[in-house]
Amino acid sequence: MTDWIAVDWGTSRLRAWAMGADGSVLQAAQSDMGMGALTPAGFETALLEVAGEWIEGPTRVVACGMVGAKQGWVDAGYAVAPCKPPMGAHAVEAPVKDDRLKVFILPGVSQQRPADVMRGEETQVAGFLAQQPGFDGVICLPGTHTKWVQISAGEIVSFRSFMTGELFALLSGQSVLRHGLDGDGWDEEAFDAGVADGLQRPQFLTSDLFGIRAEGLLNDMAPAAARARLSGLLIGAELAGSKSYWLGQQLAFIGAPELAGAYQRALKAQAAIGDRTDAEAMTLAGLCAANDALG
Amino acid sequence: MTDWIAVDWGTSRLRAWAMGADGSVLQAAQSDMGMGALTPAGFETALLEVAGEWIEGPTRVVACGMVGAKQGWVDAGYAVAPCKPPMGAHAVEAPVKDDRLKVFILPGVSQQRPADVMRGEETQVAGFLAQQPGFDGVICLPGTHTKWVQISAGEIVSFRSFMTGELFALLSGQSVLRHGLDGDGWDEEAFDAGVADGLQRPQFLTSDLFGIRAEGLLNDMAPAAARARLSGLLIGAELAGSKSYWLGQQLAFIGAPELAGAYQRALKAQAAIGDRTDAEAMTLAGLCAANDALG
Repeated sequence: MTDWIAVDWGTSRLRAWAMGADGSVLQAAQSDMGMGALTPAGFETALLEVAGEWIEGPTRVVACGMVGAKQGWVDAGYAVAPCKPPMGAHAVEAPVKDDRLKVFILPGVSQQRPADVMRGEETQVAGFLAQQPGFDGVICLPGTHTKWVQISAGEIVSFRSFMTGELFALLSGQSVLRHGLDGDGWDEEAFDAGVADGLQRPQFLTSDLFGIRAEGLLNDMAPAAARARLSGLLIGAELAGSKSYWLGQQLAFIGAPELAGAYQRALKAQAAIGDRTDAEAMTLAGLCAANDALG
Repeated sequence: MTDWIAVDWGTSRLRAWAMGADGSVLQAAQSDMGMGALTPAGFETALLEVAGEWIEGPTRVVACGMVGAKQGWVDAGYAVAPCKPPMGAHAVEAPVKDDRLKVFILPGVSQQRPADVMRGEETQVAGFLAQQPGFDGVICLPGTHTKWVQISAGEIVSFRSFMTGELFALLSGQSVLRHGLDGDGWDEEAFDAGVADGLQRPQFLTSDLFGIRAEGLLNDMAPAAARARLSGLLIGAELAGSKSYWLGQQLAFIGAPELAGAYQRALKAQAAIGDRTDAEAMTLAGLCAANDALG
């Protein structure tokens, strides 16, 4: 029987899990009713469409992600770093019509200098720390806006975001580079060379990007090499900017296998290594910790 | 009476001029039938739609730009730098059905290391050098893919492209940053600070870009400041990469007043100055020089 419902609600997707009293996942469902597709009035309906049949009586829902943004269900605000990842006590209750529901939304984390925000990743960090409470080092969360998070004594000390994933999507899908990137092959050597160039000379990034197009026109660079080089250049430039986060640090990665694997490979060439844990598992662990804290 | 027809045919636009025997412009017209919208068979029709009524007898057409690309009317190839800007003798004749037309398309310029290409800019450079044959220094051509071109003894010695303009368009129109950039204001101070940051620490570019979003969420950064900072960061990072092209060099700019003005302002802060000439005027001057060379 469903004890509570865990929800990871991002800009483009809603994922929900029916949770047992012992923290086990009973059922999972998802929809494309992300925050970006909804007006405030639409969130409750979207949730019930996905999770409605799990609800038999009064049920708590604990959610994280863009659902707590200004344009979300309710503005859950931000905890300000340095801080512990927001827990249940910081959750904001969302207005509902169906009185069986009690919906708690976790805040994000903000930082004033340099100005930065996260919303969703803090819950993955909370889940990671619930499993490894003694971790002291840096967590890298590769994604649309990759985050580097310095952890000490259970707190988010500081963090920095890079637009690497979104730039890859825009450049590979909509820029002049798209002409040379057809298919889905991957060339490890071209990736490694791209990382090296991006890391050693980030000042040439926006020129090296155009160079991918020129290599395609002049030297028939293969699409698999072009795509891997594009990814490598962007990740390499990110590593140049995030050096203080990974050089000589205890590292951990939270993310999807393929993308996190690319970061692990790029950093291994710099003798920086760390283990990967799964993003969805960490989100669930963080939501479980928040649910426990709500009592 | 139309002596010949000059054509600047880019990816998204076709511009044509009816030219007098003395090099004067008799009429001008344009359409959105750019190279990107046409198959090879469509170019002649698109040209006649724009310029057909100027044609009374056998008429020469001299064209530059993406019309000479592989996907264009005919592949006009590239001259290989170091080289003089391609002249009439290097033009490739395009196949026509209307036998009143004789269509010459100018090649672009390529470079092997680092791999780079231009197509259209070389004709502006030719026009510039036709007017200032003794110029020795660097021409900056701001645009979708900004070019820096080292000129010596009438030759293109080397050049380097940066994706600055296309990145600005993608980031301001389609990335998460678009939410904070509504309207069309401009904040000079935010531009200057962006240039300084981009130039001094290009390794943080993809992080500073996300910072614009965070400043909007946390500190209500105004759209005019956000847009100007975005432009400043991208131009500043470009200046970090193009330093060998502008530091201690004789400089000239070919471009639209607003965009070239932004580059001039950014470089003036580094004590690098140069005059601007109009892009369209230089294209016409280059096409005139090519027409003269065809005899």
